[in-house]
Amino acid sequence: MGDDFERLDTLRENPRDDIPMAHRMKRFVEALQIRIVRALDDRDDGASFEVDRWSREEGGGGITAVIEDGDLLEKGGVNTSAVHGPLPERMAREFDVDEAPFYATGLSLVLHPRNPYIPTVHANYRYFALGDDLMNPVDQWFGGGADLTPYYPRLSDTQHFHQVWKDVCDRHEVADYEAFKQECDEYFYLPHRNEARGVGGIFYDYLREDPEGLFFFSREAGRAFLKSYLPIAERHRDESYGRREKSYQRIRRGRYVEFNLVYDRGTKFGLESGGRTESILMSMPPQVQWRYDHTPESGTPEADAEWYFTARDWLNLTEEEVPDSTV
Amino acid sequence: MGDDFERLDTLRENPRDDIPMAHRMKRFVEALQIRIVRALDDRDDGASFEVDRWSREEGGGGITAVIEDGDLLEKGGVNTSAVHGPLPERMAREFDVDEAPFYATGLSLVLHPRNPYIPTVHANYRYFALGDDLMNPVDQWFGGGADLTPYYPRLSDTQHFHQVWKDVCDRHEVADYEAFKQECDEYFYLPHRNEARGVGGIFYDYLREDPEGLFFFSREAGRAFLKSYLPIAERHRDESYGRREKSYQRIRRGRYVEFNLVYDRGTKFGLESGGRTESILMSMPPQVQWRYDHTPESGTPEADAEWYFTARDWLNLTEEEVPDSTV
Repeated sequence: MGDDFERLDTLRENPRDDIPMAHRMKRFVEALQIRIVRALDDRDDGASFEVDRWSREEGGGGITAVIEDGDLLEKGGVNTSAVHGPLPERMAREFDVDEAPFYATGLSLVLHPRNPYIPTVHANYRYFALGDDLMNPVDQWFGGGADLTPYYPRLSDTQHFHQVWKDVCDRHEVADYEAFKQECDEYFYLPHRNEARGVGGIFYDYLREDPEGLFFFSREAGRAFLKSYLPIAERHRDESYGRREKSYQRIRRGRYVEFNLVYDRGTKFGLESGGRTESILMSMPPQVQWRYDHTPESGTPEADAEWYFTARDWLNLTEEEVPDSTV
Repeated sequence: MGDDFERLDTLRENPRDDIPMAHRMKRFVEALQIRIVRALDDRDDGASFEVDRWSREEGGGGITAVIEDGDLLEKGGVNTSAVHGPLPERMAREFDVDEAPFYATGLSLVLHPRNPYIPTVHANYRYFALGDDLMNPVDQWFGGGADLTPYYPRLSDTQHFHQVWKDVCDRHEVADYEAFKQECDEYFYLPHRNEARGVGGIFYDYLREDPEGLFFFSREAGRAFLKSYLPIAERHRDESYGRREKSYQRIRRGRYVEFNLVYDRGTKFGLESGGRTESILMSMPPQVQWRYDHTPESGTPEADAEWYFTARDWLNLTEEEVPDSTV
């Protein structure tokens, strides 16, 4: 793993013009997958990641790394894929292009921790190209981001997470934290609930200007993931909880399911492009609960939590401005 | 309740031409709701149905009856609604009409029993009209059906359920069991899993010919619901089960969630037309589980169960043709 990263580091100073971006991105996300899986595996004594390699009839495949029943992670998946072939008809219509080959590669992860005080997290780093010649694609773009879905949100966790992404964005011309945060808020939103999925993060898609700069940005963002999340997980992993907190966690996970199945473009693209169902749906939480018209009583930690499911300017909030139980 | 039904019975012989079909259907589904809720309530000692009335800003409203944590029903909802107003834009596009008022009324129910040996069941009876004048709608149609989603399917349950619907269809010119069964199989299908949601039943939609005949058919179908399901529930309610069966039930419920959120037109219509989210999503199962790449070992009752998740000609199967554990 270390070797892969060092090799990529030398590429930073000498952008390769003899290797398609598609392949550089594939190599990067696969190395990142190893780094993230190892770090999480080291921190979980209850279970280990299992790795599945799969291939797709029309071209390409992926590597699915899943952990279940861990002590830190009740369920988690860190997947990479690199798929290619003729563009599915519905996507050709959406992108308004004639039939063309496509190439898509990326890493996508979702971690559902066991302890309800640790947030669920999602991140992805994606590249998409259209055309026959990957060295000169007809069109190409980058997408990705990272967002946090706490059950019992804390201002400090929320600010830590956002600060990491702001710092990464601030170091790259191609990135804009304010814009990416807003896109994240708009994307991870459940209209039928009139609520945000969580406390957001950053989200970007269809970024086309300066592919070389976008690749470096994607790479730094990918590498910042562990820094954005592990300190939060470590801070709460030994906090004690009971049935009440577990039940609320399961109800909130229901919103996660609703978002992913009703609105998420990645899930739809995956299912429509003949992606591997089990890899796409590894994002589903382990144990979920739906109760009719569940509304936390005001003054409870659960009601305080819901204050966070509206987009806010997290980095500029002070402890005085948030519900007491969430400081 | 009894009175309402008797009044409706007299209407059968004397079709009313001074009351819009929309109102006759609304009155019928509300009476049916009372009948079904009472019958289920009588059979559940653990909990009672709670009734919520709601209204919709643009016009109309509904009655949601929900039971949770019962001994027979872990969760169940029997809802009626009658909503009207300007047709939402997306639906106007779908139906290829200009802006027009619509009126939609119906009953929709989903019952998630506690015992994994009892199937989940879903049924609905719907009427839709377009235009300003409900006495002379520009367009009107009926839809509905009933389908069974067992966890541990039994041939006898499956045949009982289908036989009830075949008998009802056979008594009505406007209905065709074979066609409605096939529509059901096609509708309740998960392409990404390549499997049926359950063992089907009947499904029909956009039926326009002979509204009077369709109303009588809808009414008889609605009244046959209890006969189609209660004997199955009674047969299995005291069957003993353990953690294994409960876990399998929760995993299969995940498929139910996937279908409803990804494919179900009723759910989409409801969420888009500004329906009441909690009433629409009362169909969600209570406790659900997703495991990565869950595949039952061959020779187990769970593997036998999965034999049923492919559409078959249930009424013409014999015990010799089905897996032993499902007889």
